[in-house]
Amino acid sequence: MSEMNKQWLLASRPQGVPTEANFRLVETPVPEPVEGQVLVRHHFMSLDPYMRGRMDDAKSYAASQALDAVMQGGTVGEVVDSRHPGFKAGQMVVGAGGWQQYSLSDGRDLRVVDTGKVPASAWLGSVGMPGVTAWHGLNRIIEPKKGETVVVSAATGAVGSVVGQLAKRKGCRVVGIAGGAEKCRIVTEEYGFDACVDYKAGRLKEDLKAATPDGIDGNFENVGGEVFDAILARMNAFGRVAICGLISGYSGESIPLRNVRSILVNRLLVRGFIVSDDMSSWPPALEELSGLVGSGQLRYRETIAEGIESAPGAFIGLLAGRNIGKQVVRLA
Amino acid sequence: MSEMNKQWLLASRPQGVPTEANFRLVETPVPEPVEGQVLVRHHFMSLDPYMRGRMDDAKSYAASQALDAVMQGGTVGEVVDSRHPGFKAGQMVVGAGGWQQYSLSDGRDLRVVDTGKVPASAWLGSVGMPGVTAWHGLNRIIEPKKGETVVVSAATGAVGSVVGQLAKRKGCRVVGIAGGAEKCRIVTEEYGFDACVDYKAGRLKEDLKAATPDGIDGNFENVGGEVFDAILARMNAFGRVAICGLISGYSGESIPLRNVRSILVNRLLVRGFIVSDDMSSWPPALEELSGLVGSGQLRYRETIAEGIESAPGAFIGLLAGRNIGKQVVRLA
Repeated sequence: MSEMNKQWLLASRPQGVPTEANFRLVETPVPEPVEGQVLVRHHFMSLDPYMRGRMDDAKSYAASQALDAVMQGGTVGEVVDSRHPGFKAGQMVVGAGGWQQYSLSDGRDLRVVDTGKVPASAWLGSVGMPGVTAWHGLNRIIEPKKGETVVVSAATGAVGSVVGQLAKRKGCRVVGIAGGAEKCRIVTEEYGFDACVDYKAGRLKEDLKAATPDGIDGNFENVGGEVFDAILARMNAFGRVAICGLISGYSGESIPLRNVRSILVNRLLVRGFIVSDDMSSWPPALEELSGLVGSGQLRYRETIAEGIESAPGAFIGLLAGRNIGKQVVRLA
Repeated sequence: MSEMNKQWLLASRPQGVPTEANFRLVETPVPEPVEGQVLVRHHFMSLDPYMRGRMDDAKSYAASQALDAVMQGGTVGEVVDSRHPGFKAGQMVVGAGGWQQYSLSDGRDLRVVDTGKVPASAWLGSVGMPGVTAWHGLNRIIEPKKGETVVVSAATGAVGSVVGQLAKRKGCRVVGIAGGAEKCRIVTEEYGFDACVDYKAGRLKEDLKAATPDGIDGNFENVGGEVFDAILARMNAFGRVAICGLISGYSGESIPLRNVRSILVNRLLVRGFIVSDDMSSWPPALEELSGLVGSGQLRYRETIAEGIESAPGAFIGLLAGRNIGKQVVRLA
């Protein structure tokens, strides 16, 4: 009897918040690589907010996730069989293996990584797509100068925590925005931000004003809505805003923005981006981030769900903000 | 008895829409230049929407207009007396002489212009601040490529009409947005835009969709609100938005923006600007625009009010959209 590969398929498109019924677990035999292919056994799979957008059939920056196909997503794992000249058994590789225990690849999506100094799961977080997203938005859009004030929303997240620590290393005053006293404690005590505003405390405008006495020069925006409006009201002339994420209102549209006028009055640069648009950021970002994580100078948190079966529940929890830091699922 | 200089002062700050009572006409003797000064007799003075913002005491990109001081603004006129080595009587100069018949200058704000091929009033419009604004937003922010679609709101205005004609010369499909059938006729027939959407016709979304079959790559935004939202919904990936003006709602804040999500999904560049931020655009812009106006290749319209006494009424009409093209006041 051949070994089996458990896989999560998209069973149906969610209406609003996804439920476990939108996913279906199936088992198929572990495939064998043909010439030019690599078989990878996944150690961790990544769960990311962007996956929610792909579950819809609507226009977004990524193609929709097909129904009845394996959920797409980033993975890190071990090459267990290779008929590809660029890979050999035992190597650890980052790839796009999806929500399953094993995947076949033609090698084009795989990158060999060293899990000696940087743990395997970190290649999906601070030293993976979220880390490069942080690096790109900060260095290529915000371009902060020493002494400037940078504000990061969703500051405990896989992206936000890296943005703030990198900005701090550049000599900026760094202010995080997070929900709840415990998350704010992590932002200042563990990640070393200068201040953190708890948007759930009911004094968003006042607390943000107190935390940014010299105004705001750079904003890495992961949230939108009321938080973004409060930030816009504090922006300095010629400030830069990198838009990485926006929550949606009940209708599925984004929450209306009130302080549009700040863009004009303060001559702001506002730029939406996704990290795959500019591959030139990846090599310098990964080099810097792996060095900082390997030497312990860049801190991160993970929320680890155990076993392939836990993936849909962990994903729903991620969308509800129940994780702290990077959400992954341990598969082996 | 010395000759007199009629001047409009700011008498009080407006609550909402300005009225004639916010201005006060005074007469003072025409001043005499001392060493290093130039006396200019104004032929035309400029009326511009930005002046409304300066009448408030609120934070904006320009310093507030002081109470009981001469209203500030651009002027074009003739040097009638000079004790400055750089200027001599009879020269035509563009400057910032304000709402009055004569002004003294130390020369720093003055630029000698040739009114042979380009009429004096045009140096306040298509070949002045509005023209350079159009040139800068189009060339430095939107940077349109041949074949792309550029949409311009307030398309009959002093700025919008230049934006569209310059974009057309770059091989773009150019769509204007204007209020009313007559304004739309001017936009297509006189300025040569490919299409014009009448936002007062009640079919903004549908008409804009029909006019932009390939979506929108560049938006020169003079209006904001519902018009801007309709444009954002049609933007293509990696589109560019130059924000030059935004109307305000009743509360004085800008009208909320609903399609914020388009900035992220389409990875838009959105940039607010005012033309005085980057003086490097002025020389190339003025060279190109004066050449095009002088040779009749760039068309423009003016609404000319007669006499210094008409200035407040003409300004109130400008804010209400009663002008077509550049609003100036003839003073001599």
